[in-house]
Amino acid sequence: MPSSAIPDHDIRSIQRLTTLHGHISAQTSAEQSNMSNQTLKIVVCRDLGPDVMPLFYERPELDIVTWPHDRPCERAWMLENVPGATGIVVVFGEPVNQEVIDLAGPSLKVVSTMSVGYDHIDLAALKARGIRAGYTPDVLTDAVADLAIMLALMAGRNGSETIDLVQTGQWPQYSWSPYGFCGPQLSAPSAFLSSLTPNVQSQRTAGFIGFGRIGQATLARLVPFGITDVVYYTNPANDSDPKAIERFAKLEEELCKRHPSLKSIFRVSKAELAKQSDVVFVLAPGGPATRHVVDEEFLKEMRRTAVLVNASRGTLVDSDALAKALKEKWLWAAGVDVVEGEPKVGSDHVLVKEPRCTVLPHIGSATLETRLGMATLAAKNLIAGVFNEQMPMELK
Amino acid sequence: MPSSAIPDHDIRSIQRLTTLHGHISAQTSAEQSNMSNQTLKIVVCRDLGPDVMPLFYERPELDIVTWPHDRPCERAWMLENVPGATGIVVVFGEPVNQEVIDLAGPSLKVVSTMSVGYDHIDLAALKARGIRAGYTPDVLTDAVADLAIMLALMAGRNGSETIDLVQTGQWPQYSWSPYGFCGPQLSAPSAFLSSLTPNVQSQRTAGFIGFGRIGQATLARLVPFGITDVVYYTNPANDSDPKAIERFAKLEEELCKRHPSLKSIFRVSKAELAKQSDVVFVLAPGGPATRHVVDEEFLKEMRRTAVLVNASRGTLVDSDALAKALKEKWLWAAGVDVVEGEPKVGSDHVLVKEPRCTVLPHIGSATLETRLGMATLAAKNLIAGVFNEQMPMELK
Repeated sequence: MPSSAIPDHDIRSIQRLTTLHGHISAQTSAEQSNMSNQTLKIVVCRDLGPDVMPLFYERPELDIVTWPHDRPCERAWMLENVPGATGIVVVFGEPVNQEVIDLAGPSLKVVSTMSVGYDHIDLAALKARGIRAGYTPDVLTDAVADLAIMLALMAGRNGSETIDLVQTGQWPQYSWSPYGFCGPQLSAPSAFLSSLTPNVQSQRTAGFIGFGRIGQATLARLVPFGITDVVYYTNPANDSDPKAIERFAKLEEELCKRHPSLKSIFRVSKAELAKQSDVVFVLAPGGPATRHVVDEEFLKEMRRTAVLVNASRGTLVDSDALAKALKEKWLWAAGVDVVEGEPKVGSDHVLVKEPRCTVLPHIGSATLETRLGMATLAAKNLIAGVFNEQMPMELK
Repeated sequence: MPSSAIPDHDIRSIQRLTTLHGHISAQTSAEQSNMSNQTLKIVVCRDLGPDVMPLFYERPELDIVTWPHDRPCERAWMLENVPGATGIVVVFGEPVNQEVIDLAGPSLKVVSTMSVGYDHIDLAALKARGIRAGYTPDVLTDAVADLAIMLALMAGRNGSETIDLVQTGQWPQYSWSPYGFCGPQLSAPSAFLSSLTPNVQSQRTAGFIGFGRIGQATLARLVPFGITDVVYYTNPANDSDPKAIERFAKLEEELCKRHPSLKSIFRVSKAELAKQSDVVFVLAPGGPATRHVVDEEFLKEMRRTAVLVNASRGTLVDSDALAKALKEKWLWAAGVDVVEGEPKVGSDHVLVKEPRCTVLPHIGSATLETRLGMATLAAKNLIAGVFNEQMPMELK
């Protein structure tokens, strides 16, 4: 399979969106910046696509200045353009710090980021100046839960290896064999299947490290695969917090009601989770508190037929430990959408080199619908902030 | 990712099974064939692995002659060994025809195949001689349904392209962009997401070409992804068969009861199915009657954001038409586990060359549990046939 040139790919996606939704692409704003001084200057550091940019253009009060390329905005361009801005739209990784705020000057009222994370925004500095900020949470739950299921399946079914076999032209030489390319089945074996062989049991345990909205959405998708038991591990601080304990008890009760085929659901220690799970989903926030929550010790406790999925942040999994674990077969396989140190993850990375590790380039939220929703939310947050209205998703 | 040498892979799987299930590998039977003439000769054309072969070895009445290699049984070896056999065990693709039956002679009582398909067995010739036959259906429903979901997700999420980007070391150069690597979301967008943008609707239609056990198992898995509507297309002969029509009406009623979140389920024409579906699953039997049921005409009617999944038989989809459709963007992407003419599908095959087509090497039933179940069933069928007992799955 020839790889598409990357810029083409993005352009194709954007063109696709235009076609999809039948909008007419509004002209980008390189020329539009020479407008009257009465208008409010909005600096948009990334073109949000032909379905979203019109939300700005249709407001004659706004003077939209957009980074004209389909690649990350250059810092120099941003610094050159922010003076006098009323609003700034950024995407993840474009720092909005004291320098930007000072350069923008007293006109700045709102900063809007198309992202769930907001490490790149100096919230304290914004607050000190009464500048509002918007972000785009809650929109990507389904997209990430879908990807978590895909990774669990790909890990168990040797997805990377079998695709590679076909792509490198080895299929014609490959001869079927009783256990060729077999891996553990995500679905619980049927009663008939388990009646045939005493060692195949009709049950499956899913483990969740972090059990918030995305974890629960992933669980919902797993239920018809015959998942019978659930274990989850949360921030240890919860263990001594009566309110948290009550909250989890309620959640468990609610989930058992919602999914009557579940036989059990327990909050457990990390070691117990490793021991009991047929599939482990890492779906917790990043940051220092969760760094390497999946380490050598955890991996050693895992079932030899289990798979590990990380669709949250790369820092949660120790890559070297996982590569070692896969090599020494402590677990069956892994599927990761995120890797510590990304995007500096080349073809010689320990995980990329492991045949039993499926590595995706952080595409968790990459669906047309979700990204369109995130971009729309970023635009709506910005506009609401500029006109002193309620922002759909304000960062407080 | 380095490709494993293929024989190694199979051997690894088999060794793995031993470890998994804690059985002690029985010695293969090269030496065991020199036994007394009182025993019944069983020719096993493929080693069924250390978890299953003991089912034969533990019967002292049987003299087991096993093809000693981990590759397809050579015809000459089979013909040399079948004379005087009471039973023959084969896998898919090893012809049991008049020649084999004649060579085996009057001792032959049973032929057992580790496969669902039985095109390789001359049933009429067996029947004429009163020889019983066993096969292994029903065991692989879950394994194939799992794979169908995986292919639907991989097609929509650019699975092949993104894996390729990482494997070829392009991730470090890839910069995030709002719509980079986006594809249509399998999950129906949430109410919140669709409230943001008028063009994103909270509904999804799944279409099934063929709607038997595997189709229904796939549907069950799709329900929590928010699939709201179902259309299916079956053998046109059903249209004028009142009994079939009644059967489908009952099925629809039952499925609506089982999945209360479904809003509609209809049996429709092929053209309607193409027009309405966000995802099309081809899960029908092979053979001349279904050849190229997915052709240029069908593909032209599909939604531009839809994905196509084929996890049944390669003959159902016209590969050239699909490649053309993907190139010209009549649909979004495809995921196929089977290709017409397989395994003669090299890296220059029209579908393998399409970046938007995920091609897997027919691994639908390839899970440890399912293949172990199929092998066990094949052994149990054989033994039951030899000892005049009821076969778990007899071909009649």
